[in-house]
Amino acid sequence: MAVLSPLTDEQASPAARAVFDDIRATRGTDYVNNFWRLLAHDPDQLRALWDRLKVVMGPGALDPLVKEMIYIAVSAANACEYCAHSHTASARAKGMSDEMYAELLAVIGLASQTNALASALQVPVDDAFKA
Amino acid sequence: MAVLSPLTDEQASPAARAVFDDIRATRGTDYVNNFWRLLAHDPDQLRALWDRLKVVMGPGALDPLVKEMIYIAVSAANACEYCAHSHTASARAKGMSDEMYAELLAVIGLASQTNALASALQVPVDDAFKA
Amino acid sequence: MAVLSPLTDEQASPAARAVFDDIRATRGTDYVNNFWRLLAHDPDQLRALWDRLKVVMGPGALDPLVKEMIYIAVSAANACEYCAHSHTASARAKGMSDEMYAELLAVIGLASQTNALASALQVPVDDAFKA
Amino acid sequence: MAVLSPLTDEQASPAARAVFDDIRATRGTDYVNNFWRLLAHDPDQLRALWDRLKVVMGPGALDPLVKEMIYIAVSAANACEYCAHSHTASARAKGMSDEMYAELLAVIGLASQTNALASALQVPVDDAFKA
Amino acid sequence: MAVLSPLTDEQASPAARAVFDDIRATRGTDYVNNFWRLLAHDPDQLRALWDRLKVVMGPGALDPLVKEMIYIAVSAANACEYCAHSHTASARAKGMSDEMYAELLAVIGLASQTNALASALQVPVDDAFKA
Amino acid sequence: MAVLSPLTDEQASPAARAVFDDIRATRGTDYVNNFWRLLAHDPDQLRALWDRLKVVMGPGALDPLVKEMIYIAVSAANACEYCAHSHTASARAKGMSDEMYAELLAVIGLASQTNALASALQVPVDDAFKA
Repeated sequence: MAVLSPLTDEQASPAARAVFDDIRATRGTDYVNNFWRLLAHDPDQLRALWDRLKVVMGPGALDPLVKEMIYIAVSAANACEYCAHSHTASARAKGMSDEMYAELLAVIGLASQTNALASALQVPVDDAFKA
Repeated sequence: MAVLSPLTDEQASPAARAVFDDIRATRGTDYVNNFWRLLAHDPDQLRALWDRLKVVMGPGALDPLVKEMIYIAVSAANACEYCAHSHTASARAKGMSDEMYAELLAVIGLASQTNALASALQVPVDDAFKA
Repeated sequence: MAVLSPLTDEQASPAARAVFDDIRATRGTDYVNNFWRLLAHDPDQLRALWDRLKVVMGPGALDPLVKEMIYIAVSAANACEYCAHSHTASARAKGMSDEMYAELLAVIGLASQTNALASALQVPVDDAFKA
Repeated sequence: MAVLSPLTDEQASPAARAVFDDIRATRGTDYVNNFWRLLAHDPDQLRALWDRLKVVMGPGALDPLVKEMIYIAVSAANACEYCAHSHTASARAKGMSDEMYAELLAVIGLASQTNALASALQVPVDDAFKA
Repeated sequence: MAVLSPLTDEQASPAARAVFDDIRATRGTDYVNNFWRLLAHDPDQLRALWDRLKVVMGPGALDPLVKEMIYIAVSAANACEYCAHSHTASARAKGMSDEMYAELLAVIGLASQTNALASALQVPVDDAFKA
Repeated sequence: MAVLSPLTDEQASPAARAVFDDIRATRGTDYVNNFWRLLAHDPDQLRALWDRLKVVMGPGALDPLVKEMIYIAVSAANACEYCAHSHTASARAKGMSDEMYAELLAVIGLASQTNALASALQVPVDDAFKA
């Protein structure tokens, strides 16, 4: 279900199709997933987001696989169904092993637990932690 | 501010103090932060959580620093003030550089943005992503 | 899927059916959507919520279409699947154009991004912003 | 810090002051807390919310103390600082013991953990759970 | 949909199957729901979580049914589809009446409303509420 | 409190200071608020975010004041203390009246309430709402 229909290559504007082509070239696959096909209703937003994503998720001080796992963590906390699916697939494609995934889940579970406890208890921030 | 007062070593029960001692030994520091001093009102919960945290956050298929960064990501998504402070301090102590932190923040920001867009658009999950 | 079954007009109590009738008259349509048909299991809650919604979402200092867009924004942040669908449909019915929707999405995405960054960084509130 | 100033009895409109008086009479205390003093900027919203709260939080099929603990649980999940403070105070005033509070926190922590895991894993809902 | 496949008894490791057996014995039913069948990919996490859940959700200062309702409240606030389904089913099995469920929903709705208002208004915490 | 210190003009790099200057020129004020002074630790992220914000929050199919109110709504749902303060100040500066603010709060409260109810009840999406 979606509030808009994903656009096929034929339905997309030339500006949106250019982003589709860049997604294909960058990822080395013909497949363009639904998120981008929905954003294609607004080619400017599509372009801005894809360009930023390429920079942010590429190699740097952090490994691209680490970045995908951070992405999954945020998506789980935000209860984003689509993002959990798509970024788990991406992390798998970038080499996330069963052991890594199990540890990722354990950290997500633990952090969610202590976040809720800290919010319930309104734990005062230690002076030692302040900048 | 807090809804309970942090317990000093003197106020804590022997069972709670034993956890404080384990925290000190594990971390190689005398300092026990407020989160544990508040949980000390319930020594069983304190023990269960600390024991689990030692297992989950220790070395494994993922580096302990990577785990701290995943923890920060969850905490930011959950708007947990205390956890953002305490785990940023932990990540720094484990070697998170300015460059790594900047990239972590960029991924957190991007993921939060696309999570909200996917939730607003209710993007249908691609068959390709399903197990 | 739902944890309760939506009630048909025949299954609903007279008190619940009276709310259904008011929904129909207010909206000028015969259709009563699932949210109200589930709330009909508790006619008092159904009545209280519908009466409040009529007041809050009606014309005032803000245009009803603006109110629907604010509703979508909250629903996206809360990852509410049903609400994203139903209030996007309502906003469309009240005249939300493609351009307005695209801008709404862009603001939702940007706000979600900066919310997460501000929570990660625990930015101190400027004195200039305090009442 | 607040984006508006709490209104004193003198600053509040007669309609708002009437709600303050009802709060005092209902609770058997002279104290009116900041939440209501901020809402007093909009006497209609103040009245609607207070009237609803009296009905919802009063005795019924659930004990008022149970309702306060449910309120704390929602507030922790939503990371609401003010609500964690005010409803923990209310629950204490209604008789929440140290043991009850410890168990409440344990359930909040556990639920937050499994919520995040279920969202990360996108666990398919069992047919057995559907209405 | 799920990012992993639930494991059948045959696919599960002996360590995971031992947890399945404990789930069956504890609940007095042959049915093991999908959440545990997905966690079975990581038998250590499965065991740790199930053991903790048995302690936390069992009888104590709070009634097990009250604990299930608190669980539902957290799950609703976190928009966890699976958890809303599974814990509503559990609460029903433990005796939650229609009247209790209606009141639970009313409290969840009210708390969510005032949480959002308190966060928008940034209501300053009353000195009277501080520990 | 913050996990990093806000950078003064003197501490900021030339690239960051150029963004500060653009903020001043765009807003017609000498004041640069803490959010940007913290982001200045990563001049690239600072530039990317400010450039995007100028486009997204400027005039278009939606009025800039409407955009600020949508921003407040997202920030309240995400419990972002800083963002609630800063964007309420921005909305005031753009002409949000007391009446508009009261209605904005009422919609935020109502949406949060029905979001939680829809998530608790797992209301099935009506076919009529699907694209």
